[in-house]
Amino acid sequence: MVDFETLARPGVRGLRAYDPGHDLVALRRRYVEAQLVELGSNENPYGASPQAKQAIVDALAGIHIYPDPLGGDLKRALAKHHGIDSANLLLGNGSHELLMQFAQVFAGPGEDVVASKFGFAVYALAAQAAGAELRLAPALSRDAAMPRGHDLAAVLEAIGPRTKLVYLANPNNPTGTWFGAELFADFLARVPEHVIVVVDEAYAEFVDAVDFASALPLVARHPNLVVTRTFSKAYALAGLRVGYAVAHPQLIAVMERVRESFNVNALGLAAAEAALADAEHLQASVAGNAAQRAALAQALLARGLKVSPSQTNFLLVEFGDDAGRIESRLVSRGVVLRPMGGYGLGECLRITVGTEAENRRLLEALDEVRA
Amino acid sequence: MVDFETLARPGVRGLRAYDPGHDLVALRRRYVEAQLVELGSNENPYGASPQAKQAIVDALAGIHIYPDPLGGDLKRALAKHHGIDSANLLLGNGSHELLMQFAQVFAGPGEDVVASKFGFAVYALAAQAAGAELRLAPALSRDAAMPRGHDLAAVLEAIGPRTKLVYLANPNNPTGTWFGAELFADFLARVPEHVIVVVDEAYAEFVDAVDFASALPLVARHPNLVVTRTFSKAYALAGLRVGYAVAHPQLIAVMERVRESFNVNALGLAAAEAALADAEHLQASVAGNAAQRAALAQALLARGLKVSPSQTNFLLVEFGDDAGRIESRLVSRGVVLRPMGGYGLGECLRITVGTEAENRRLLEALDEVRA
Repeated sequence: MVDFETLARPGVRGLRAYDPGHDLVALRRRYVEAQLVELGSNENPYGASPQAKQAIVDALAGIHIYPDPLGGDLKRALAKHHGIDSANLLLGNGSHELLMQFAQVFAGPGEDVVASKFGFAVYALAAQAAGAELRLAPALSRDAAMPRGHDLAAVLEAIGPRTKLVYLANPNNPTGTWFGAELFADFLARVPEHVIVVVDEAYAEFVDAVDFASALPLVARHPNLVVTRTFSKAYALAGLRVGYAVAHPQLIAVMERVRESFNVNALGLAAAEAALADAEHLQASVAGNAAQRAALAQALLARGLKVSPSQTNFLLVEFGDDAGRIESRLVSRGVVLRPMGGYGLGECLRITVGTEAENRRLLEALDEVRA
Repeated sequence: MVDFETLARPGVRGLRAYDPGHDLVALRRRYVEAQLVELGSNENPYGASPQAKQAIVDALAGIHIYPDPLGGDLKRALAKHHGIDSANLLLGNGSHELLMQFAQVFAGPGEDVVASKFGFAVYALAAQAAGAELRLAPALSRDAAMPRGHDLAAVLEAIGPRTKLVYLANPNNPTGTWFGAELFADFLARVPEHVIVVVDEAYAEFVDAVDFASALPLVARHPNLVVTRTFSKAYALAGLRVGYAVAHPQLIAVMERVRESFNVNALGLAAAEAALADAEHLQASVAGNAAQRAALAQALLARGLKVSPSQTNFLLVEFGDDAGRIESRLVSRGVVLRPMGGYGLGECLRITVGTEAENRRLLEALDEVRA
């Protein structure tokens, strides 16, 4: 029989798919009585806006109809929300799809894509699937003020003559770290204008640090800047797969050629529009996260653990050589965190900030397994 | 400013996105009183299974959670339904996504992809986006028993030393034609085993012709055969974006590397599983379509129009030089068909088989505009 591996394009041959973590469906079935505490996927524990759920119910009668291929209503709502034009917007089946397609459209064999060590795993996958070379800039040290965070000077240095695309996350997953507005403006001014800079702001709604600023307002002045956002995190619609990119209309128009017309499902479009309109629900989630993030970080620090500063809804925590053992023991107690071996951070675990009750259960289980 | 067109990969530079037809959202708003008759997108006019809608309602509480990245429950149900293994299955954000990704994974610059003239438009897009060359086999003549249908002998002849992939549709969109089981088995036996043959069976559930057979049972004997199916047509879930491919586990495993883990949304997974279980609802849709397809074809033939034989839920109808004028006059009366200029069939219109009431409104409007 033919070996399909050798039939595949070179970039695909070496590819390993994104690791979404534990098989949660199987775990949920096993721990159905104990109620699993799921702190591995950075979901919003407060759930979706009731208005988003109502929008889905209202749209049920039309699920036999294709979604609006233009996503017009959601784009108009997003344009108004961000003070931009609909032509600046590209909708995705989650921002994951868009992150993959930016590489597919703009980078290929003989070209390279720059990202930072400890950046979100999808950037490397996107580069590799496109057949482009990945150039990883070194991260800040683990003892820096932003441990393992993006080092924008190093990223700038990694950009070479064959670089087509740069992926940055602000704040970054899995480190939780961020870079400030001034640093980024300075960085962007030095990037050649033919190099596209994608700033993934999946966690931006959670930020309260005063030195942070979204890159969105810079899009108007930098045609090579792309900012991606998602409804999966603060807007609590991870199950529905809605993300978007903001960029110059000409860049969006090129991306639109590769977008599948019906890439965002009809219930996702309806729910995202409703979720965007429910500012109160968003604020409650963000406030709940901020309070619990501080409390959980405090509790972990009090246990002698090193916790990275975070502006997201998760914490990167150092457990040293014990990390793997602790993680699997927590799973056996029905508490799921995200192992970090895939990021070369086997000594760390990534902990989603849960509700007060979830965090309490995590801490109790942690004290048991560390005892 | 940089021209993003020149920054894009060669395949993307010449690409024109798939044309989903009229802006139906805008038309719906314009014809809100008259009730638009939508016969342009081959949707199922009988709507989704009530069980599928209930499954969505039941899943609403969990939309803040990521979908099952394995799609395990739906795969197990499909495996049972088709008498195959879960490892034979790949789930897609509609079969559109999978059709694009087969080319992305297996074809590239310097290689070619074979399809038939008047085949579904996405095949050409998939080849072009991947940077591969498209080789179009001539179709059967417009006077053949299967007008403009796939000519499998011509497709076989178009396969050359650089061919990686062949796309066929059975039955085909937009012609409605099909090829028989014996012809296909003979064709497949002659295709080199390193050439992957994708048979798109999006409309297979509607077929009642005795000479048709699904290619699904052939997958067990032909590792280079892929069959795609969708929940968008007979299963009436076009809004939810769920499709799948059936193929050899090793071929599926290579495709899995490129699949985005959460490509199928949680409500789509739940609804598809419920729709698959509701055999009665499917049968009612298929029977309703068969009866209305025959009646509509008869009514159009009685008006002196040439109607292609169809095993789908649409009819390709020749209107000659008047086609464009008739189509736009129908739109102004709130009846939407699909213009075929993009397929080089400007003299034809594609008409989705509606309910009895919808077809009556179409015929009345047609008589008015042709008078």
